[in-house]
Amino acid sequence: MTVKIGVIGTGAIGRDHARRINEVLGGAKVVALSDVNRASSEAVKKDIAPDAAIFATGEELIASADVDAVLVTSWGATHEQYVLAAIAAGKPCFCEKPLATTAEGAKRIVDAEVAHGKRLVQVGFMRRYDAGYVALKKTVDTMIGAPIMVHAAHRNPTVPEQYVTPMAIHDTMIHEIDVLRWLLDDDYVSARVLFPRAAARSHAKLRDPQIVILETARGTIIDVEIFVNCHYGYDIQCQVVGEDGIASLPEPMAIQTRLGAKLQNDILTDWKDRFIASYDVELQDFIHAAAKGTASGPNSWDGYVAAITSDACVAAQETDGAAVAIRLPARPALYQ
Amino acid sequence: MTVKIGVIGTGAIGRDHARRINEVLGGAKVVALSDVNRASSEAVKKDIAPDAAIFATGEELIASADVDAVLVTSWGATHEQYVLAAIAAGKPCFCEKPLATTAEGAKRIVDAEVAHGKRLVQVGFMRRYDAGYVALKKTVDTMIGAPIMVHAAHRNPTVPEQYVTPMAIHDTMIHEIDVLRWLLDDDYVSARVLFPRAAARSHAKLRDPQIVILETARGTIIDVEIFVNCHYGYDIQCQVVGEDGIASLPEPMAIQTRLGAKLQNDILTDWKDRFIASYDVELQDFIHAAAKGTASGPNSWDGYVAAITSDACVAAQETDGAAVAIRLPARPALYQ
Amino acid sequence: MTVKIGVIGTGAIGRDHARRINEVLGGAKVVALSDVNRASSEAVKKDIAPDAAIFATGEELIASADVDAVLVTSWGATHEQYVLAAIAAGKPCFCEKPLATTAEGAKRIVDAEVAHGKRLVQVGFMRRYDAGYVALKKTVDTMIGAPIMVHAAHRNPTVPEQYVTPMAIHDTMIHEIDVLRWLLDDDYVSARVLFPRAAARSHAKLRDPQIVILETARGTIIDVEIFVNCHYGYDIQCQVVGEDGIASLPEPMAIQTRLGAKLQNDILTDWKDRFIASYDVELQDFIHAAAKGTASGPNSWDGYVAAITSDACVAAQETDGAAVAIRLPARPALYQ
Amino acid sequence: MTVKIGVIGTGAIGRDHARRINEVLGGAKVVALSDVNRASSEAVKKDIAPDAAIFATGEELIASADVDAVLVTSWGATHEQYVLAAIAAGKPCFCEKPLATTAEGAKRIVDAEVAHGKRLVQVGFMRRYDAGYVALKKTVDTMIGAPIMVHAAHRNPTVPEQYVTPMAIHDTMIHEIDVLRWLLDDDYVSARVLFPRAAARSHAKLRDPQIVILETARGTIIDVEIFVNCHYGYDIQCQVVGEDGIASLPEPMAIQTRLGAKLQNDILTDWKDRFIASYDVELQDFIHAAAKGTASGPNSWDGYVAAITSDACVAAQETDGAAVAIRLPARPALYQ
Repeated sequence: MTVKIGVIGTGAIGRDHARRINEVLGGAKVVALSDVNRASSEAVKKDIAPDAAIFATGEELIASADVDAVLVTSWGATHEQYVLAAIAAGKPCFCEKPLATTAEGAKRIVDAEVAHGKRLVQVGFMRRYDAGYVALKKTVDTMIGAPIMVHAAHRNPTVPEQYVTPMAIHDTMIHEIDVLRWLLDDDYVSARVLFPRAAARSHAKLRDPQIVILETARGTIIDVEIFVNCHYGYDIQCQVVGEDGIASLPEPMAIQTRLGAKLQNDILTDWKDRFIASYDVELQDFIHAAAKGTASGPNSWDGYVAAITSDACVAAQETDGAAVAIRLPARPALYQ
Repeated sequence: MTVKIGVIGTGAIGRDHARRINEVLGGAKVVALSDVNRASSEAVKKDIAPDAAIFATGEELIASADVDAVLVTSWGATHEQYVLAAIAAGKPCFCEKPLATTAEGAKRIVDAEVAHGKRLVQVGFMRRYDAGYVALKKTVDTMIGAPIMVHAAHRNPTVPEQYVTPMAIHDTMIHEIDVLRWLLDDDYVSARVLFPRAAARSHAKLRDPQIVILETARGTIIDVEIFVNCHYGYDIQCQVVGEDGIASLPEPMAIQTRLGAKLQNDILTDWKDRFIASYDVELQDFIHAAAKGTASGPNSWDGYVAAITSDACVAAQETDGAAVAIRLPARPALYQ
Repeated sequence: MTVKIGVIGTGAIGRDHARRINEVLGGAKVVALSDVNRASSEAVKKDIAPDAAIFATGEELIASADVDAVLVTSWGATHEQYVLAAIAAGKPCFCEKPLATTAEGAKRIVDAEVAHGKRLVQVGFMRRYDAGYVALKKTVDTMIGAPIMVHAAHRNPTVPEQYVTPMAIHDTMIHEIDVLRWLLDDDYVSARVLFPRAAARSHAKLRDPQIVILETARGTIIDVEIFVNCHYGYDIQCQVVGEDGIASLPEPMAIQTRLGAKLQNDILTDWKDRFIASYDVELQDFIHAAAKGTASGPNSWDGYVAAITSDACVAAQETDGAAVAIRLPARPALYQ
Repeated sequence: MTVKIGVIGTGAIGRDHARRINEVLGGAKVVALSDVNRASSEAVKKDIAPDAAIFATGEELIASADVDAVLVTSWGATHEQYVLAAIAAGKPCFCEKPLATTAEGAKRIVDAEVAHGKRLVQVGFMRRYDAGYVALKKTVDTMIGAPIMVHAAHRNPTVPEQYVTPMAIHDTMIHEIDVLRWLLDDDYVSARVLFPRAAARSHAKLRDPQIVILETARGTIIDVEIFVNCHYGYDIQCQVVGEDGIASLPEPMAIQTRLGAKLQNDILTDWKDRFIASYDVELQDFIHAAAKGTASGPNSWDGYVAAITSDACVAAQETDGAAVAIRLPARPALYQ
């Protein structure tokens, strides 16, 4: 069967996902588009999905009998309403991060999905589909003994002036928050944030870099360097220290050259290149599950826990290195 | 549009390509199957392509009005007849290597395609679609100056007793023959083969390893170590030395561990894992071109040149290190 | 001139230094030996320094007119008395770490040397002479911009039962305390210690691993993983993150092999192998300075600061992650 | 005892060895100097060896009762006469390469040393003392099974106009000729040379690069890329392929940085830096043996075999890829 997909929000990421579905992946077709800016949907229809219908609102798109499953790639503040509508309609829904802009909003989605009784939501945490993280998880699970520490870094060459200190958590660290929890199969119990002196390239409203330290329920300590104006490149590092040894995330594939007295290879500079292949895999996973009327991969609970953890990290930016507790409600059976 | 594909030869590789088309890639569908062993086609129909018709012969499959394009994944000795039939029918045709079992057979395909006047054939030289080789070619073309030497190795852990010395060329080196010609955008003018003492794991009818040395029209010298019983792993190496510097093919992605007093990562042992991703890319390229009624990627001429070059290398296995000349006819305009 | 050296303490390290002086390095000769265990000195005389006189006490050795300079390689608790005696005699003195077993003791040495008015003491912090750290310092000083963070690790395969939690600072972390201060040319202002769950191989009186976080006067934050039962090897890591980029300590030289489906090289397992070459360099530096009647390299003040910092780190092992301030007196002009 | 050394030839390398003996190494002292340019010896006396006597000729220096052992670091054409004189005097003699400028000259030295009945000569093949080659030999001898192939490269950034094609063998490849024979513990039986098109930076009288292929008595095939105008750096590579796996010479120690979108480290550009540490070790070995009245390390026979092999390689530069046989006389018992 071919899954008929409606895309809500046809900006950069929505357009790119539409291209994936219609040109790269098998088993699905974009049949409906909606955006507050109708011209944006018209353009996607023209360039990528000529057979798609254009809907005035996301709610109408979700309600259409022609739509089997929904992609929510609109502005973050609208995610919650569309995901709730999709759940109400019983339709599988892929939602880009954040699932909601508040932990309470995410909780409402969890509650709705639990009430529905079946998984319908996949959150767009694409790193879980990255070949490097997948291989790392396999190694961590089988070769190095139980994890004790994680040393990670999320470095980005530059951010604009409007990027302020809490965004280092909500927009940047959010990926580590989800993927490390998945990697360790563990939950967080506390967060600390340490600030070295701010880098010279930092901004008036941004303290950059920062070191976020998370502790898990099993006592693993994770340190994550977040450095969003690091200048030299987009660089994601992750090293897991276990009882018996250490495993590290691979560097992205690159050609090594010997040139001008340097042995070297390129480091990526654009975040969009780093996990590009994982977007294909996550969306294929969504299509496969949607064909069966359900959802797979990162779930609403994961989105909710990420929201709670992010809030604790932001709170910890203000406590001068003291730990902020992270407390989660009981995990519903749907997400065990 | 969806390209309707018929698969001739539904053994391991044909079955796997059918899976790719129906489950992984977009834009095509398997509608017809044929195999000398009908049960094999029945199994693919059952597991992968429920809507496909089964044909008694490849020729009937090619003739079917329901079939837009053909995959030739049958036994090598039958490739030529099916490719010629597909050209006669004016249908795009993907043919696994070898294009034909003799240079003369490949020449007949070239002639038929030239007479047809439009490209219809893609040969299954998948390395050209490997992300590592693609990146290497880009680096060679732009960063290291004109190539002067290539040092390459094709190492395989073990081969069975029936693998004899010439197969090191026809079955193994054939990939380097095509991909290095593409990488350098050059033609070969001579081949030498040097034999070190045979490895202890070699067989009665196999002199292993061997070093094949090719010279190109522009004077680049290529040495390729072919070692098919190297024991330790499946390992493909390629280093290009240019006027200004050197570029090397990347190692496959692997998790580095620190364990038991070793800093290490896995080396692949099964050739099927090394270029697995490139099969998806090559077949997607075929589908895209077939949708336009033509073919892309490695062409009949490439298949013919590979056959001529292989024959020269095999001849050079008997000349005690003396160079054997490689002479090509003029390249038809269709392949310029 | 040949510097005539007396060695106080002829156990493993004293004996090895005697061998260096008499068999490897130029410009010095061992002329005197002393040890509480006279048989130990007799053995060194027999095997390495046949012309050396044996003295009943370190004080007598120091007083001998035949002795130009002194090596203090005795039991740590005796270092202070011998170093003070050497200063009193106006003789250059190389003292293995610790300079004294308490910060107060180290301060008495500083005061005595300042009163003497000229440098006479070199402390055995050999890492400053390691080719890797020397190259790292040069890179940090010239290429990566001002340092902002340091990520370091000190991993050791196993320690005996009598190794207790504070020893992770006094015996292990002490090397990072000195070498990172030298590397950054900065002073520490606070220390924190975080404990993940203890590793399964830890002992009853040892919480292992631990993460020590130091902050410097310029606001650089340093995290050091101390893991003394890490099992897999002796592994020293150091990465400096600067305004413009990152520099890392090289791995020790090792042969990379491709064997048994692994691309690998050995990791050291014995700490004695890691900095073996730096012992030669540090002692040669001592000899060169001693020939001029003075001392070079890590000085008494460095030893004193290391003692104060160690004490703060040990205190921080008890504060549940809260920062412990590190306060230093004004640095005497002799050590500017 | 202190070995009293006379240095014949006080140009760059002689001066540097004098410095080693007097300032770095233990167990020896420069007591005599001689050079055709007396001012050169005066300068070394002034700067490095104030107690040394200056002799008008090398022969007088060798004859001096004050001289225990001799360093021959004069112009290559004079090596033979001084080495023969040292043997006649029964004095240990370290001779920089070449041992003699002709194979016949080297044979006369072998004959004289055999007649003397005891080893007195060490040839300055310093690579055997390089820590990387020493570790590689240990790995080759114990871990990878019997060697079957060696892939090596000797790359140099630039050479002057007067460097002509045969010098690529006599001055450059000579190091691989000796060190690979030692590494494999095998003898050469033939040489081939292949020339790719000449690099654009090559000279009128220099065909650069070239690929020299040596075969050994046990059937190992060695390919060595010699590229003396490679532009990018001074780069020595060596990979040994054995029955069970592969071992590679380590890269020189270098700081890896992440800077400006590059993961990189420096490649050396000056050959003098590459083996600098091995000069210390080889000369220390000479001193230790000379103290016992004999010599160690690379011997006269090694120098003679290197000369014969070099001659064969130069002959092979003219045979258009055909093999030139290398025939050695029986090895005298002194060198077994």
